[in-house]
Amino acid sequence: MRLLTYHAPGTDRPRLGALLDGDRVADLSALAEAAGADLPGDLLGLIRAGERALATAGELAAGAAEDPAALPTLARLTLAAPLRPGKIVGVGLNYVEHVAESHRTLDTDRELPDRPVLFSKPATAVTGPGGPIRHNAELTEQLDWECELAVVIGAPAFRVAEADAWRHVFGYSIVNDISARDQRRSGQWFFSKGQDTFAPFGPVVVTADEIPDPQRLDLSLRVNGELRQSSNTRHMLFGVARLIADISSGVTLEPGDVIATGSPSGVGAGMVPPRFLQPGDLVEATIERIGTLANPVIDAR
Amino acid sequence: MRLLTYHAPGTDRPRLGALLDGDRVADLSALAEAAGADLPGDLLGLIRAGERALATAGELAAGAAEDPAALPTLARLTLAAPLRPGKIVGVGLNYVEHVAESHRTLDTDRELPDRPVLFSKPATAVTGPGGPIRHNAELTEQLDWECELAVVIGAPAFRVAEADAWRHVFGYSIVNDISARDQRRSGQWFFSKGQDTFAPFGPVVVTADEIPDPQRLDLSLRVNGELRQSSNTRHMLFGVARLIADISSGVTLEPGDVIATGSPSGVGAGMVPPRFLQPGDLVEATIERIGTLANPVIDAR
Repeated sequence: MRLLTYHAPGTDRPRLGALLDGDRVADLSALAEAAGADLPGDLLGLIRAGERALATAGELAAGAAEDPAALPTLARLTLAAPLRPGKIVGVGLNYVEHVAESHRTLDTDRELPDRPVLFSKPATAVTGPGGPIRHNAELTEQLDWECELAVVIGAPAFRVAEADAWRHVFGYSIVNDISARDQRRSGQWFFSKGQDTFAPFGPVVVTADEIPDPQRLDLSLRVNGELRQSSNTRHMLFGVARLIADISSGVTLEPGDVIATGSPSGVGAGMVPPRFLQPGDLVEATIERIGTLANPVIDAR
Repeated sequence: MRLLTYHAPGTDRPRLGALLDGDRVADLSALAEAAGADLPGDLLGLIRAGERALATAGELAAGAAEDPAALPTLARLTLAAPLRPGKIVGVGLNYVEHVAESHRTLDTDRELPDRPVLFSKPATAVTGPGGPIRHNAELTEQLDWECELAVVIGAPAFRVAEADAWRHVFGYSIVNDISARDQRRSGQWFFSKGQDTFAPFGPVVVTADEIPDPQRLDLSLRVNGELRQSSNTRHMLFGVARLIADISSGVTLEPGDVIATGSPSGVGAGMVPPRFLQPGDLVEATIERIGTLANPVIDAR
């Protein structure tokens, strides 16, 4: 299932939807109400409610798919971020070629890391599909992009073995890990990567059953239509299962938490000469089987 | 007011209390119910509800203080962390002498930082007063302490000027910023400082009106009764108002968010030879006008 959160025209509260074939969107909350079914009203609630609730959602969506013409198309709706994560754990330097470009142009080590390089972005950094990325020229001249596979946690994970990690995955999405490269503080990335709107997230969360191999997904990023990043998740240094095992060795992952699994090469800081985001730019991050997350950059001085 | 969250004997749900003179604890939820007053049932709710709710709580506590003998003493109750923060923004290298010891013994710069050095700890790292700090010898041989003044945000803050910063402070508490020094990852502190139980928090949140000058508070830390840290918040490089202005220049601070304002010198990594926490140790972090946050270290292999 392809789950999303949206604002319907004329309504206040964000709604939980399922994206069907032909870009039709089923309103899962309305369907549940009509069917007298018990279903949480938002994606985080659905994740927390577990497998039975997900099965109910799937049945409701399948029912709606029988009469798709009655449903609005995606283009008519305004998407929000799929959910507000408790935490976003970011992974740095997780693609070989990005390690090299980062060493050449930023301040990171030349050697491949022997353990995942972990940082975090706060929930306040999240913005949804189409949401503006704030460019504040008083704070940065080096606003940069990073297309990343986002893993959405389904079941609490603490000290989970790599072989059991998949049981804790609810699904997959996209995070664009925006950085103000010149706002690293004594090497720490939090302020550089944690500012408001620096975590575009979406457009949908695809449940794990629809992604047969998360380590074999093409991912790419375009700025104003020009290709800047193009790789495949098979080039990750530490794959999804290893990341879950590593993080959960010390940090509990909770339902709705997100792991941003790192960026391939092709960031702006690595270009010769470096090129960074400017107000007016449009950034589109695409991952196979998930979709495209598009966000404009705005002047936010 | 000195607000706390506790488990009363024989009850399930944590309760919101006020600590009165003589270490008596008033059950604010029960008092509100008895008085027919509208009061949120937990501290985060109280903070979000704003000044009127806080005034109500104050009146209820004042009423209870007239008959203190009817109230349980603190020693009879089990405290929890005052609240679960949306985010904890940590500040590194924010006391001059700690910058020197950190450069000598860790991998940080010798020079004083010209901007606050920011990192974060997730909410899952929080543990309450008396809660065990997990020592996992498979992950660390360098578990270290840092006594820090915690600022609890009251009103949303985005792009707040230093002069207006105080309006966004709800109150103050203590965070013990525990680090596994050997779990820094390519310099990033998240996994070193973000593990479960690495953010002991409490014992109370003292409302801002009871702390006339947060930049003039003695703070100290003892391990097994031996003094290891002793300083005063006037030695911060970047004071509370400056930190709020700086962080909120890019990152929205929300009600219940916590800023851990940095540690003075006297950490274990800086001792000659270095000394780190071991299972069986008791760590007590004390700040003037707030209290003492005591946590045992346990073997968590």
